Amino acid sequence: MTPDHGPLLYEGKAKRVFAADQPDRVLVEFKNDATAFNALKRAELEGKGRLNCQISARLFEMLEREGVPTHYLDLVSETWMLVQHVDVIPLEVVIRNVATGSLCQQTPIAAGTELSPALLDLYYKDDNLGDPLLSESRLQLLGLISSQQRLEIEQLARRVNQLLLSFFESLDLLLVDFKLELGLNSAGTLLVADEISPDTCRLWDHRNSDPQARILDKDRFRQDLGGVIEAYGEILKRVQGV
Amino acid sequence: MTPDHGPLLYEGKAKRVFAADQPDRVLVEFKNDATAFNALKRAELEGKGRLNCQISARLFEMLEREGVPTHYLDLVSETWMLVQHVDVIPLEVVIRNVATGSLCQQTPIAAGTELSPALLDLYYKDDNLGDPLLSESRLQLLGLISSQQRLEIEQLARRVNQLLLSFFESLDLLLVDFKLELGLNSAGTLLVADEISPDTCRLWDHRNSDPQARILDKDRFRQDLGGVIEAYGEILKRVQGV
Repeated sequence: MTPDHGPLLYEGKAKRVFAADQPDRVLVEFKNDATAFNALKRAELEGKGRLNCQISARLFEMLEREGVPTHYLDLVSETWMLVQHVDVIPLEVVIRNVATGSLCQQTPIAAGTELSPALLDLYYKDDNLGDPLLSESRLQLLGLISSQQRLEIEQLARRVNQLLLSFFESLDLLLVDFKLELGLNSAGTLLVADEISPDTCRLWDHRNSDPQARILDKDRFRQDLGGVIEAYGEILKRVQGV
Repeated sequence: MTPDHGPLLYEGKAKRVFAADQPDRVLVEFKNDATAFNALKRAELEGKGRLNCQISARLFEMLEREGVPTHYLDLVSETWMLVQHVDVIPLEVVIRNVATGSLCQQTPIAAGTELSPALLDLYYKDDNLGDPLLSESRLQLLGLISSQQRLEIEQLARRVNQLLLSFFESLDLLLVDFKLELGLNSAGTLLVADEISPDTCRLWDHRNSDPQARILDKDRFRQDLGGVIEAYGEILKRVQGV
């Protein structure tokens, strides 16, 4: 069901953003498009939009209950969400609890290494540049955020990590790593924005020790493991407490 | 002329390191091999070893006169240098005074932007990994250096930048950016190691405003501009004060 909405404001790889009835709110439609490797790999996965929308809603609600400010306002339909309008900070905040993926291609850290404290990296959000890793000096040079905001972002991201880690652990899921996007609402408050889903989190099933079968996230798509929608469905079942 | 030397200890892309008569000294032979793009591009450039050896010797001598500790001890022949044995820290310290090269491919900073203060980035020295950029968090995770050493490295590299920038400026050369490698000698002193040459510095000729003709460094090789040896020869002439 498509809700009443205003004009399209922005179309990303996995979502469309439309004007809503008030200027400080927007409607987000989750698409079925799957992309990986900076959109070099693409597919249409029936049901993915609904799953990511529903999973994100549950996770945003959990974070809000714990006092973390997010852009989430309401679930409007199976694939549509009402959120606060934010000025997105063009950074991807990546927090890793276990080393895997690009970290292990770019450093000698062995895959599977537990990272405690969690490793926090900032990437510049720009598809044309391939979302490059930023050093602190490059971050300062870009002048995207103040040093106070840099601290706030790290604190907020680490708190989100603690909450998600515990929540997923209670569902027999290991939060390996995840990406956050943050934004500022009209009052200047820093909010968790975008989505929190198996597209943006690596999640491993504690109920399965097989290193491929335990993967319940976008790595199933990246690595052609199949069963993407089934895995996302399993995550939704667990976050819904079904 | 090949000096008396002990066994080969290490062979890199541009140099060979041999044992010398004392365990805390080694002999470095500068090769004619030119490599770029992590050795995907290779060539043999007659005379390059001599030029880089002689240029490095002059620059190390200048730094030593200014009180900067380097591994340099003596020039032994046209292509051989006697240096202190150091444990090389597996980091590449890159200092940029003007934005160009990979910085402009990895950030939205426009080529030619003056960087003041100079931008300092650390890369993990590992050819197999392609010498990846390190964030501060990755640097800490790797545990290669203490936070005190991190500070010392930055201070030393910035001092070297000031000295090289002024020195080259007096020769009508703009030091665009450069890479330093550092090591610890047997007494634990942090030293500038490796080489300082047109292979490791971008140098633009103030006497020439043409954006290609002014390039007097390895970019001539990377970009197939020709005249590599002539450019390196011009650098040697100027640093020798001829």
